Amino acid sequence: MQNTMTNFLKKRAFLTPERTAVYFRDEAITFQDLYNRSVKTAGQLQKQGVHKDQFIAVLLTNHIDTITILFALQLIGVKTVILNNRLTPTELAWQLKDSKVSAFILEDTFSHLEQMLTQQLPALNTMTKTKLFAQESIRPEIEEEVSLNEICTIMYTSGTTGNPKGVMQTYGNHWWSAVGSALNLGLTDQDCWLCTVPLFHISGFSILMRSIIYGMPIVLHEKFDEEQSIRDIEEKKVTIMSVVGTMLTRIVETLKDRQLPQEFRCMLLGGGPAPLPLLKACVKKQIPVYQTYGMTETSSQIVTLSPEYSLSKLGSAGKPLFPSEIRIEQADRHSAQPMEAGEIIVKGPNVTNGYLYRPDATEEKIRNGWLYTGDIGYLDEEGFLYVLDRRSDLIISGGENIYPAEIESVLLSHPEIKEAGVTGLSDPKWGQVPAAFIVTRNGGELSVDKLQQFCLTQLAKYKVPTEFYFTNQLPRNAAKKLLRRTLREWLEEGRLKP
Amino acid sequence: MQNTMTNFLKKRAFLTPERTAVYFRDEAITFQDLYNRSVKTAGQLQKQGVHKDQFIAVLLTNHIDTITILFALQLIGVKTVILNNRLTPTELAWQLKDSKVSAFILEDTFSHLEQMLTQQLPALNTMTKTKLFAQESIRPEIEEEVSLNEICTIMYTSGTTGNPKGVMQTYGNHWWSAVGSALNLGLTDQDCWLCTVPLFHISGFSILMRSIIYGMPIVLHEKFDEEQSIRDIEEKKVTIMSVVGTMLTRIVETLKDRQLPQEFRCMLLGGGPAPLPLLKACVKKQIPVYQTYGMTETSSQIVTLSPEYSLSKLGSAGKPLFPSEIRIEQADRHSAQPMEAGEIIVKGPNVTNGYLYRPDATEEKIRNGWLYTGDIGYLDEEGFLYVLDRRSDLIISGGENIYPAEIESVLLSHPEIKEAGVTGLSDPKWGQVPAAFIVTRNGGELSVDKLQQFCLTQLAKYKVPTEFYFTNQLPRNAAKKLLRRTLREWLEEGRLKP
Repeated sequence: MQNTMTNFLKKRAFLTPERTAVYFRDEAITFQDLYNRSVKTAGQLQKQGVHKDQFIAVLLTNHIDTITILFALQLIGVKTVILNNRLTPTELAWQLKDSKVSAFILEDTFSHLEQMLTQQLPALNTMTKTKLFAQESIRPEIEEEVSLNEICTIMYTSGTTGNPKGVMQTYGNHWWSAVGSALNLGLTDQDCWLCTVPLFHISGFSILMRSIIYGMPIVLHEKFDEEQSIRDIEEKKVTIMSVVGTMLTRIVETLKDRQLPQEFRCMLLGGGPAPLPLLKACVKKQIPVYQTYGMTETSSQIVTLSPEYSLSKLGSAGKPLFPSEIRIEQADRHSAQPMEAGEIIVKGPNVTNGYLYRPDATEEKIRNGWLYTGDIGYLDEEGFLYVLDRRSDLIISGGENIYPAEIESVLLSHPEIKEAGVTGLSDPKWGQVPAAFIVTRNGGELSVDKLQQFCLTQLAKYKVPTEFYFTNQLPRNAAKKLLRRTLREWLEEGRLKP
Repeated sequence: MQNTMTNFLKKRAFLTPERTAVYFRDEAITFQDLYNRSVKTAGQLQKQGVHKDQFIAVLLTNHIDTITILFALQLIGVKTVILNNRLTPTELAWQLKDSKVSAFILEDTFSHLEQMLTQQLPALNTMTKTKLFAQESIRPEIEEEVSLNEICTIMYTSGTTGNPKGVMQTYGNHWWSAVGSALNLGLTDQDCWLCTVPLFHISGFSILMRSIIYGMPIVLHEKFDEEQSIRDIEEKKVTIMSVVGTMLTRIVETLKDRQLPQEFRCMLLGGGPAPLPLLKACVKKQIPVYQTYGMTETSSQIVTLSPEYSLSKLGSAGKPLFPSEIRIEQADRHSAQPMEAGEIIVKGPNVTNGYLYRPDATEEKIRNGWLYTGDIGYLDEEGFLYVLDRRSDLIISGGENIYPAEIESVLLSHPEIKEAGVTGLSDPKWGQVPAAFIVTRNGGELSVDKLQQFCLTQLAKYKVPTEFYFTNQLPRNAAKKLLRRTLREWLEEGRLKP
């Protein structure tokens, strides 16, 4: 069986040229328009020397031009490193270096970064969007066919230890993810997907890929705004929206006594399990919530719970999509029995082949085709997944993944700090926020303001701890490994107040 | 990217155990029931010595037990040779021999064939359905995973010359066909597909595969009956039905002034282009007709025309499904220009890898991944396909493919017949029926009744010519090749009347 397909966007523009592809602000463009714009930009990129098989980084906001650039890069067979635009210059420089990119395209609003990055990466060919779009466009060499095994995108993710790793996502990963989702959620020619999540996340980028694979319009917002979301669901006849818990809460609160239109058929909820009161409020408002479990490595959702089980399987993430599999593995490598907790391992054609330039990390995380997520969970007697603990230490704040180890290593670089431990603190607005436990060198306390300022120089704002607790000792096991779970227990028991 | 998936039926029964899978007569069974029955039958098959990687032939009618047997064979990794139950014993024996099957399962109503076949194939392990189902069932060894590259089914098809060939259809072919269809037609949890076409054809078998891949109920009829079809569309809330032209005509005529329910959303029309009056009648009755082009080698539809183009693109078969491609090639191997006729060549993951034990035929028909269909057609400026001539000589009668060469070779085996040529005659009921042109040895005429009796001993009934024309000479080109197109012109001009 062959593993190549016609270039996705080109095929879509051929099949349904006149169908609307994207609504953005007051604009609506068809798939033919999107194709034409992307071809033009592909020509501008090639004029700049960009060519097939290069790695090119982008730092872009949710904008119709971003869609054009992302598809232009696909048209000419470039592997796109999609950077999170909330990162600090230090974090960006690290990922740009790590991915060995040949060029870097950034939003004009981020051009203040250009100088800083140029200092650290003098050889990098950096261009703003305006500069790129001002180029003359030559007739580009379009990749007529794509191999499903080829890398389409790279997205960085942090682990429990060490530096962030570039997750390689192939065309096949994105294809199968879109197909698995369609087989689960269904697909009609009335469908329209609202994207208010970042395009630099797999949650947003996967909506783009579904759009061209399904021939489905998307409504793109620059950022999440509950009022505008509700308005567009009504006016643009949106049927599906991707959200995290905090967004859904704000929508439910803003709706008050109103309901969403009947045509709205799916609230795809990622980023951790939803609290019971929120689910109950959604049932009352007849908002169909599909809870999901997924990660950058699975190119979006891999396990989904349909609304009819929202309450009876409360807290469950559901069952795997048709093409995918999950298993719970115990420390001795045996499959766990139903109701027995262990590591969640996943498999499927939507699962990454590994991490860019990291054969060691790839070997550690992917064994016999199974991805070891590091997350802890169990399957009930009927095979529904319950996630107990995300990557043991992962903090999910407003849909962003935050890894304690990364924050701890920044804190430990502070001259007055001897030990640091970070864990998640429940937060009504963000789900969780990071909280830090500090042992100072002199046993005293430090100014929280100054500590936060210090963190901001090296960490994206959402990663900076909101609370600091000073203590004499951190909980560690016999091997002196920090027990972050105990830190969380301390928080829950209220043993330490700031 | 991996190429294995969980066993389709097992996964489906796990995902949606309680959803209805099949309606048949007064019965309705769930996916869990279907799985349990198939596991039981798999155990009965294994008790009979049937095992993975064997080829097993089946000669079965449209019945719920047939579905069980077909899936039981899949569960244990058997490659199933699905025989057309309208064939004569001679034709069946030929295909059984050619496919080197280890066992043969047949409907009890066909058991009169058993003796005849045993004479020709004394070593063949033949069992009737009753005998199989009476077996003790051992705990079968289920294939937990299927490789998409593995052969799932073999269906025989005749060419313009020579013997029938076994088309190898992999799990991947069926998977991608189902996915391509869903991306084109959409998929909702209200969907229900009416199958009145034979399960031994790819048109019927592909509905089975869609059922387990989509989690969609099907309504199975033993044979097409327009009254019962309309009744079930209404009562069982059918949304999609596969038809050929003659079936659709009968439905439209039977409906008279009534309409189908609004929920009915797709009449998938295969087996040749539909006549304008039929399409107009469907538009008037608001029956959404999707015209398709496909063949056994493409595991069902590969090109489809959606209803909004029914009239403006009259006679077109539409555009290829998302995962597939078509091209028109001229005799010099160059791609034809728009509006220029040539051979239709197709490519895609739903296209067969070739013919069983026929590397020569495979090499001839599949080159660089492209299947040379032998059909003649062109693409218009917008890329819509128009099929001018199916495999130059193919006769399509009530959805069955009939190859003139096969009938001619039977006629030529008659001692009184010197030359024979067969072509299709338009028929209001069947679309086409075969008509034969005969040159006798003594120049006289033969009894049509006796000729038909003679044919019936070697040919399925639908292949027996309905008309015989006696002539002194057949039209041949310089190389003495029979010009069947001229025969058709003779018929159209009414030059020869029976």
